[in-house]
Amino acid sequence: MKNYITHHPWKIIEEGYRPEYNRISESIFSLGNGKFGQRGNFEEYFSGDSLQGNYLGGVYYPDKTRVGWWKNGYPEYFAKVLNAPDWTGIRIKIDGQELDPHKLKLIDFRRELDMQNGHFSKIYKAEFPDGKQIKIHSTRMLSIVNDELGAIKYSITPLNFSAPTEILLPINGDIKNEDANYDEHFWDEIEKSASARAPYLITETRKTHFRACYAMHYSLEVDGTPQSLTQFDSIEETKYIAHRLNVKLDEKKTTTIYKYAAVVTSRDHKNSDLKTVASEVLAYAKSKGFCTILDEQKAAWKEKWNHGDIAIEGDTAAQQGIRYNIFQLNQTYTGQDERLNIGPKGFTGEKYGGSTYWDTEAYLLPFYLSTSEPDVARNLLIYRFKHLQKAIENAEKLGFTNGAALYPMVTMNGEECHNEWEITFEEIHRNGAIAYAIFSYIRYTGDKRYLADYGLEVLIGISRFWAQRVNYSEDKQKYVMLGVTGPNEYENNVNNNWYTLKMAQWTMQYTMEAINYVKQTIPEEWQRIVTKSNFVESDEISNWKRICENLYFPYDQKREVFLQQDGFLDKELKPVSNIPAEETPINKHWSWDRILRSCYIKQADVLQGLYFFEDQYEKETIKRNYDFYEPMTVHESSLSACIHSIMAAKLGDEKRSYEFYLSASRLDLDDYNSDSDEGLHVTSMGGTWMSIVQGFGGMRIKNNMLSFNPFMPEKWKSFSFKINFRGHLLNIVIDKDNVNIHNDADEPLKVLLFDKTQTIEANDKITVDMNCQNK
Amino acid sequence: MKNYITHHPWKIIEEGYRPEYNRISESIFSLGNGKFGQRGNFEEYFSGDSLQGNYLGGVYYPDKTRVGWWKNGYPEYFAKVLNAPDWTGIRIKIDGQELDPHKLKLIDFRRELDMQNGHFSKIYKAEFPDGKQIKIHSTRMLSIVNDELGAIKYSITPLNFSAPTEILLPINGDIKNEDANYDEHFWDEIEKSASARAPYLITETRKTHFRACYAMHYSLEVDGTPQSLTQFDSIEETKYIAHRLNVKLDEKKTTTIYKYAAVVTSRDHKNSDLKTVASEVLAYAKSKGFCTILDEQKAAWKEKWNHGDIAIEGDTAAQQGIRYNIFQLNQTYTGQDERLNIGPKGFTGEKYGGSTYWDTEAYLLPFYLSTSEPDVARNLLIYRFKHLQKAIENAEKLGFTNGAALYPMVTMNGEECHNEWEITFEEIHRNGAIAYAIFSYIRYTGDKRYLADYGLEVLIGISRFWAQRVNYSEDKQKYVMLGVTGPNEYENNVNNNWYTLKMAQWTMQYTMEAINYVKQTIPEEWQRIVTKSNFVESDEISNWKRICENLYFPYDQKREVFLQQDGFLDKELKPVSNIPAEETPINKHWSWDRILRSCYIKQADVLQGLYFFEDQYEKETIKRNYDFYEPMTVHESSLSACIHSIMAAKLGDEKRSYEFYLSASRLDLDDYNSDSDEGLHVTSMGGTWMSIVQGFGGMRIKNNMLSFNPFMPEKWKSFSFKINFRGHLLNIVIDKDNVNIHNDADEPLKVLLFDKTQTIEANDKITVDMNCQNK
Repeated sequence: MKNYITHHPWKIIEEGYRPEYNRISESIFSLGNGKFGQRGNFEEYFSGDSLQGNYLGGVYYPDKTRVGWWKNGYPEYFAKVLNAPDWTGIRIKIDGQELDPHKLKLIDFRRELDMQNGHFSKIYKAEFPDGKQIKIHSTRMLSIVNDELGAIKYSITPLNFSAPTEILLPINGDIKNEDANYDEHFWDEIEKSASARAPYLITETRKTHFRACYAMHYSLEVDGTPQSLTQFDSIEETKYIAHRLNVKLDEKKTTTIYKYAAVVTSRDHKNSDLKTVASEVLAYAKSKGFCTILDEQKAAWKEKWNHGDIAIEGDTAAQQGIRYNIFQLNQTYTGQDERLNIGPKGFTGEKYGGSTYWDTEAYLLPFYLSTSEPDVARNLLIYRFKHLQKAIENAEKLGFTNGAALYPMVTMNGEECHNEWEITFEEIHRNGAIAYAIFSYIRYTGDKRYLADYGLEVLIGISRFWAQRVNYSEDKQKYVMLGVTGPNEYENNVNNNWYTLKMAQWTMQYTMEAINYVKQTIPEEWQRIVTKSNFVESDEISNWKRICENLYFPYDQKREVFLQQDGFLDKELKPVSNIPAEETPINKHWSWDRILRSCYIKQADVLQGLYFFEDQYEKETIKRNYDFYEPMTVHESSLSACIHSIMAAKLGDEKRSYEFYLSASRLDLDDYNSDSDEGLHVTSMGGTWMSIVQGFGGMRIKNNMLSFNPFMPEKWKSFSFKINFRGHLLNIVIDKDNVNIHNDADEPLKVLLFDKTQTIEANDKITVDMNCQNK
Repeated sequence: MKNYITHHPWKIIEEGYRPEYNRISESIFSLGNGKFGQRGNFEEYFSGDSLQGNYLGGVYYPDKTRVGWWKNGYPEYFAKVLNAPDWTGIRIKIDGQELDPHKLKLIDFRRELDMQNGHFSKIYKAEFPDGKQIKIHSTRMLSIVNDELGAIKYSITPLNFSAPTEILLPINGDIKNEDANYDEHFWDEIEKSASARAPYLITETRKTHFRACYAMHYSLEVDGTPQSLTQFDSIEETKYIAHRLNVKLDEKKTTTIYKYAAVVTSRDHKNSDLKTVASEVLAYAKSKGFCTILDEQKAAWKEKWNHGDIAIEGDTAAQQGIRYNIFQLNQTYTGQDERLNIGPKGFTGEKYGGSTYWDTEAYLLPFYLSTSEPDVARNLLIYRFKHLQKAIENAEKLGFTNGAALYPMVTMNGEECHNEWEITFEEIHRNGAIAYAIFSYIRYTGDKRYLADYGLEVLIGISRFWAQRVNYSEDKQKYVMLGVTGPNEYENNVNNNWYTLKMAQWTMQYTMEAINYVKQTIPEEWQRIVTKSNFVESDEISNWKRICENLYFPYDQKREVFLQQDGFLDKELKPVSNIPAEETPINKHWSWDRILRSCYIKQADVLQGLYFFEDQYEKETIKRNYDFYEPMTVHESSLSACIHSIMAAKLGDEKRSYEFYLSASRLDLDDYNSDSDEGLHVTSMGGTWMSIVQGFGGMRIKNNMLSFNPFMPEKWKSFSFKINFRGHLLNIVIDKDNVNIHNDADEPLKVLLFDKTQTIEANDKITVDMNCQNK
């Protein structure tokens, strides 16, 4: 764990230059606007340790799989997030000396991410070996108003000299992925012109043939006075264009460069339109100017915060942590494009590749459901609907038939990317999360029509998969499910993972309910679905029923807990506290077999099931299972803390709940796991939000109503969160004494608060004493 | 399955040129002499599909591991058999036209491996586009008398022309492994001279720094008259030397080239001596001449056959099959160097890398025990003794302590090479086979002193591993063994594999017996071992006893069979005959998860245990298990048929026993599995020998006596095999009526025949009626 980020409620601040942390800071200071994004790299030439990273949403490359030992069914390609051309460079040579922050003495170095307003700035003084001192101040943003525009304001002030200076403004497409399997380049050059009015570079990805057009416009001011720019050199190299300006810097005068880039791709435009669209984006930038663009940015972010902020009084670290998570989630995904999803590193790194894991459905959907309009969450669902055919093909590769669908573990375009047999073929519970997300979306929004339009076809495909994936055990006289990996990936190829069985049973039951609903309310749609999916109602439904009624669930009679899998009780059951500190995290110290045969659990598994289906179980049952499993859980997944935080809250262990929250919310800011250098844990950020809203706020949906059972973490003075629920924007404010719920809508709303129904009038609030809670 | 090899009792003959089978033929016609070997490549320039392959025993390269997803404990390197410089080239240009068999019209093409005499020849006529016809006849051998010498006699006869001809005689060290993980070259050039008296090339492997010196000598004859060779060009290129001769071929006159190569390495000689030794080898060749070398070769092979032949009357295909297996085993390993072992492909290909698997102990030791002097098998054991310290380190990497030893799954020098977690970390039964080999060697030879000298230390290391690898299950109130892969690799990471538990229990019991023996008979040696291995007798022995007495074995009460592992009965138990033919072999058609959750078994697992320990079980028990498991066994390992053949024989199913034998013995000759192109299945060849000797011959060791319970396969007239047992060379001849056992020793020998003790006098034989058998 590191602790070098200055605590501040709205800003992420790094003071002082630490070369050894530079990759971490680059991750932390990442910017994104849902369409493209980048790490917090220096604009300057930088010779220190750095992962240059620019990424374009949905632009990927199918890198040839690297595998030690091939297994039938492995995909041949792994779709990778592509490191894309870099438009941010501003290279300065003063009197022939390169301004390389890594090589110079830096004074008052500071990087700052302004989360409230959506921009990143950097300010420092640098001293050259010959004593020249210079001050740099840059501000960078990716517009969320015009999401094909990036802008930089870069100011240079010589403090003790005047000198001829060279300013190089490149667009560099000669980019490689650090994680390329075979060291390949993924981009080809298509067209470029450094001498065009708006200099541009068009590159294209190999194999997938995505085109990206980068064009730039820039201007210069000295002490606020615009400078004419008639003199420049145009430079063209392979996959590279630049302009070189020769200017004279005068002592104590501030020269400011405004560099704008249009970033447009063939995902959104025809190849033949790319240059024109880029010109239009630059024309927009020119006409507005940097200040106006920045103002628009601030206003747009204000709107986002207005819908999704969480405010915490009395704990700046916690406040900064949660706002950082919300900020990054909003930078990564805006929900405007149902072809996009939320990659594990967002726009902040290239690790893991792919864009979509079950994280989206299990840990991210609740955030977007509550802080955006319903179509945002709906687009996440439609993403999977569009991949149904590919999921069916994926299941066919594994021997399934009749429209059974297995969604991929990792994907970009619906095809499976991952190649570890115990994950790819066996971590099939992901299918359940996709079904649950449909349920969850409808429960929240009330949009039952979604079933007929999209949801039911997906549910049928998944239920068919489950029905084929179990087999009847003559020995147990029950249906069993062999050879699976649960959410706890520290067990592989186990028999009868309780969680997966639970998801399977629930999916089939929910699918049968959904069929009934659609059949009765929109029979013509049901007919369409029957035809499209060749559904044989009599056979399939009775089969699902028989399986659901006779499904085996491992259970420990003595302890009265659900067993994670068959044979779990053969392990030596010892708490995590027994592991010597120097051997943790065990995934860095123990060989894989040792981890597998230990009782230690990576992240919620049985408990994930009890979290999803808490309404079906007595609190005592949940507590017994929590008390059994949590002490054996090492929480070595970034997705572990949130579920445990919410469960601890539910079970009244407010202290543990808060501890779990803390470790999750500052995971990247404090580099808890020593891996933030590779990029941020974007998908776990939704879990942090859930910890506060579902954990501390105790928010649930019950009978089409919001329900709250909040508690107040001891260290805090108050906290509040905003919720968008069926057209109502609510602000829930909790302090030591009261719960206040503001209803900003023109309609009244009934909510459950401490299990009592309360009506909040339109544009009004209610206040309820915190002591009303029934614990 | 292919069927293009002509059946012949002593020869492997291919008639007609089939370019599509060329790689298979190259494998089949491989030569080796225990020290080096090569595939049956053309001497000529050959533009068809070919895997050029020359290999040096014990010379390896640690290729950087290729892995999809890294797990702690994986080795960083995979020691590979190295494709080594090629000394065999003889390139002919007639009137400027390259003699490329692949491009010319070939007439009466024939390749022939003479197993009786140990050489390979090739004869054909080729017609050039311009109508020139030429006859080629080459004979090649790797001397087993002087095992650093290779020799080729290559004759050319122009049939209808005379023409100036260029003969190029290269040594080519610019060689790559086809299976290199990162396309690297593994050899560097050290020194060369094409103009030396004996032209030579010295290359060195990267990282491991093995040096190989290749030197050549050649001579020329025309119609038997030696030619003086004053005119030649010396050619030197990178890692390459050659001589080019310009001769004139006269119509109907036969020009013969004798090419000799010395192949000497730094494994056997100091770097500074390599050239001198190579010169000596060539001097030996020169002084003897090709015919004498060939005569010596024949004599040496005769001696080998005299000790290890199996003769079959009435079935040429079976005869050819078994002799081919014996021939290849003798080519691969001679037992003279305890640093060597038997790689899965021997000198016939580079696939799998590594040189040592548990195949050596489980499937090869019996052959070498019975057909060679005891020191050959003993050297195989000492190989593992020398790796004990590495096995202890290997176990330490996985968290074991106190001298527990885990031998590697795949190794060249004692270090683990393999990187599949379910194999590397979990297929630990290999440890048991290494212990069993010690038992087996002593049972056969009576050499109990071996325990004190080497065996016991290995047994203690392995027993310590087993004792730490089990854990006490509170639930079962027994010791269990979690997370293993048995010999049936179509199950991974299972709990309580019966076979592995059996091997563990047996090893600990045998180790305790061995300790008692050494302690009582050679107490000073026991003291040395106690000190060396820090053995705490009181603690460790009582711990092993407690574990052995309380070890859990999965068992099906209903069927009264041992269960392959926990949960096996949850599977759908269906015979192999249920699998549609187009889906076999399942390992090429089913995804890995589907194979894992099926009941289908790759090779003997429970049955392997019953094979090893048949004396401990009633025949009825063995039969019940065989009848339960065999129908679910797909035999997709080349090591499967032999064990089943032996068991079927024991259980009186002579027909099945013979069927299993047949599929094993011609596995490579008929390319059963469509993979002989990659090299031969050398390690399964020992199993074929076992099928006849232990299966049809019913040979066992009981109470220090050989025991035979032979039966006569219906199709055969007779069969015989030779056995070396404690100084007695026996020839066992079985026909429809009688069993004859010849004792070629000067001492009488008692044997058990059909469970009755018989004495065979010195240099005499006994004859017993086949009807004496008790079945």
